[in-house]
Amino acid sequence: MSDIERLVKQITPKSEDFSKWYVELILKAELADYAPMKGMMVIRPYGYAVWENIQRLLDRRIKDSGHVNAYFPLFIPESYLQKEAEHVAGFSPEVAWVTVGGKEELEERLAVRPTSEAIIGPMYSKWIKSWRDLPVLINQWANIVRWEKVTRLFLRTTEFLWQEGHTCHETAEEAHEETLKILDMYKEFVETELAIPVLAGRKTLREKFAGAQMTYAVEAMMSDGKALQMGTSHNLGQHFSKAFNIRFEDRAQNLQYVWQTSWGMTTRLIGAVIMAHGDDSGLRFPPHVAPTQVVVVPISVGNWRETVLPAARAAAETLRKSGLRVEVDAREEYTPGWKFAEHEMRGVPLRVEIGPRDVKAGQAVLVRRDLRTKEIAALPDLPARVPALLEEIQACLFGEAKRFLDENVRDVRTLEQFKDVLENKRGFVRAPWCGSEACEERIKNETMATIRVIPFEDDGKPVDGGCVCCGVPGRILAHFARAY
Amino acid sequence: MSDIERLVKQITPKSEDFSKWYVELILKAELADYAPMKGMMVIRPYGYAVWENIQRLLDRRIKDSGHVNAYFPLFIPESYLQKEAEHVAGFSPEVAWVTVGGKEELEERLAVRPTSEAIIGPMYSKWIKSWRDLPVLINQWANIVRWEKVTRLFLRTTEFLWQEGHTCHETAEEAHEETLKILDMYKEFVETELAIPVLAGRKTLREKFAGAQMTYAVEAMMSDGKALQMGTSHNLGQHFSKAFNIRFEDRAQNLQYVWQTSWGMTTRLIGAVIMAHGDDSGLRFPPHVAPTQVVVVPISVGNWRETVLPAARAAAETLRKSGLRVEVDAREEYTPGWKFAEHEMRGVPLRVEIGPRDVKAGQAVLVRRDLRTKEIAALPDLPARVPALLEEIQACLFGEAKRFLDENVRDVRTLEQFKDVLENKRGFVRAPWCGSEACEERIKNETMATIRVIPFEDDGKPVDGGCVCCGVPGRILAHFARAY
Repeated sequence: MSDIERLVKQITPKSEDFSKWYVELILKAELADYAPMKGMMVIRPYGYAVWENIQRLLDRRIKDSGHVNAYFPLFIPESYLQKEAEHVAGFSPEVAWVTVGGKEELEERLAVRPTSEAIIGPMYSKWIKSWRDLPVLINQWANIVRWEKVTRLFLRTTEFLWQEGHTCHETAEEAHEETLKILDMYKEFVETELAIPVLAGRKTLREKFAGAQMTYAVEAMMSDGKALQMGTSHNLGQHFSKAFNIRFEDRAQNLQYVWQTSWGMTTRLIGAVIMAHGDDSGLRFPPHVAPTQVVVVPISVGNWRETVLPAARAAAETLRKSGLRVEVDAREEYTPGWKFAEHEMRGVPLRVEIGPRDVKAGQAVLVRRDLRTKEIAALPDLPARVPALLEEIQACLFGEAKRFLDENVRDVRTLEQFKDVLENKRGFVRAPWCGSEACEERIKNETMATIRVIPFEDDGKPVDGGCVCCGVPGRILAHFARAY
Repeated sequence: MSDIERLVKQITPKSEDFSKWYVELILKAELADYAPMKGMMVIRPYGYAVWENIQRLLDRRIKDSGHVNAYFPLFIPESYLQKEAEHVAGFSPEVAWVTVGGKEELEERLAVRPTSEAIIGPMYSKWIKSWRDLPVLINQWANIVRWEKVTRLFLRTTEFLWQEGHTCHETAEEAHEETLKILDMYKEFVETELAIPVLAGRKTLREKFAGAQMTYAVEAMMSDGKALQMGTSHNLGQHFSKAFNIRFEDRAQNLQYVWQTSWGMTTRLIGAVIMAHGDDSGLRFPPHVAPTQVVVVPISVGNWRETVLPAARAAAETLRKSGLRVEVDAREEYTPGWKFAEHEMRGVPLRVEIGPRDVKAGQAVLVRRDLRTKEIAALPDLPARVPALLEEIQACLFGEAKRFLDENVRDVRTLEQFKDVLENKRGFVRAPWCGSEACEERIKNETMATIRVIPFEDDGKPVDGGCVCCGVPGRILAHFARAY
């Protein structure tokens, strides 16, 4: 077995066992690792670089839409968490509690924040007095703790990183608009930067955020046909403003409770990028969020250190000056073939090979990670060609994922068809639903599928056919799937 | 009392009561607020924007020097914290403990990280096998919890934000070099970006980090004459690699323990910026980290909305295009005079006033926050003049702070002189010290001053005169001060 085969064979093929492939790839590519405590993970530098790119690209959108960042405490006194009844019921089973500070038992337990509504509420109550103080448009980048029994790297861990927006508005309409505006922003962000197409719409009441009036979500499909919730935007109505007494004097000088929203995206997006785009040879990062966008591999033959390496370094420098994230792989101890396989596994979108003949010809070979196609470019053309090629790769990955999504939304009319699709094809099942929680529950128990989203484009339209579960006339066309 | 007087009078003058001034200014400028729990604070958007600027400017330096970011767990099992004896002794009095997860009592308590050596150690032990894996140069941006009885906004809070570097090296020399390289980087960063001059050198063993072999620090002087530790860089030697079994096969194929460093800077830097530069009228932000660098105030007379405001907006847009952080204050409900006072209080480095006559003359009035001097600039000259003026302000603030520091380092030979300086003048006291912990302790008890730093330029030089405390020949010239 050659070194290269050994490298690739260390990872179970995706087609053979998706879950094993996912975990082995994450460990092998050094994106993350298990921490010694159950449920906890470490995000290694190569994985954290993806998060930094996500942060930068999402933070820019958050700020461009008028929001500002702040930082609220990690701990929430138990009495605050209890102020909104549905909220505490939803979150208390998964809270980590601090009971000792220094050498002292605390009089009141402190929750390590499972989300921050209950610590932000009291501050807003203090800061907001008048309609002139509104809207409040604050976002926070923070770590979150929700106790988990099982660990799924990036997807389900006791601690994760996220951003959480928390806004206050004068009217119900404004809060509604903000909720939808953010969902739009999430959709545009995920599709443009992560190259993952999503369905945007509302959640059912069963699936909504504990304490929200209505939850909206963007849902994607991973390449194994399971759904992944990519981000949520909640219209909180006045639930928390009443619980925390966040009131303002309105324009007619009446005291009113503010209308609120909250919304978040997490480090699970890194898991989504892996699962949506990866293949049997490893990761395939969309160029916009790839830690390394271009790897330059000098072909190590003869006196390559004197001839090829300087050319490779010069090419890399030129590309860096165009603002690209570029690596030169000048390691002595590995063959070019090994390096090719390794950078494919690591998902680097574009490989630039430069050998002795290329140096003489003043050219380089460009190899795309997504399609594995090659082309030759003159060295002076690299600063124009490489960024264009990276955009082609970004578009190509999105196109592939979009085709996969479109092909894997299936309409069914009966529960038998429903089960058949989930057993044999996976993907989204689109079916009429009567709107009752009983049917939603029964479908979940029998198929392990939940209503992921009621897309805006279907919402409110007349539905043809009876509820896929009970047969009474369907009111809503819902997208069901098994989900992460 | 006019509105403007009322605005300024809400803040106690700095000269009257420094501590009150500090707190009132932070609350009034909305940099931060007290959280409802003892010891905890909220960093409000205007304060968090300073932190974001610090992060961006420091992160760039951390990466340019070859380090990469990662993320390690918030929780550390108690048994890990106990592995390095001095470390646990130093930190356990201030740890917050998680004892309940979900509904279950935990078998082992989890510390909310007071620093991350004890959770990073086990991971490094797993990842590092050979000299080829070295050096490991990892940094983390994270929140930290150390239980505090008292709250001093930004300076001493139960939770704070920081960056912590954790590196591993093949040799003791390399670790030593890294420790000093980082200290240099910190000094350059603080002086260039925060405009605060520092003394760089080593700490005494009494003042070193719990578990370090040697701690180095950059120390600054606040404008009340008290010292503030701005950042520390620790040479950990093999203390933690032995505790966590972090070993590598060296170039001669022998198993060796790695040599480590760790280093950090925190949100207390925001407090330093306030205390080093602020004056009776409020904050004075150095332009490099100011949330808003330029505020454009249209003078609201006559039909200003049609004439002056468009000119103000155009000027702001031009400046934004040069990459500056610019605000236009177009509020109807406040007079220009009120706005001037408010933006002075908020520390905006430069105010651009545009009135009807300025519009006609095609000019603007530029008013510096630091010196309050005015100049007139033609509107087309703004993109060149404003950035240059901001650099002048940055340099001027540094110069002022440097003069203050230089004037407030005083040499003493006796404990009486020592006490006299601290009582009547504050600042740093430079004095010969015998090197004994007994004298260090006695001085602290009698004067409340500690050895802040033994600057490199003094270190190892022959010392003239006996120990300021016991009189035996002095070995070390130390800088003492009362400190935050």
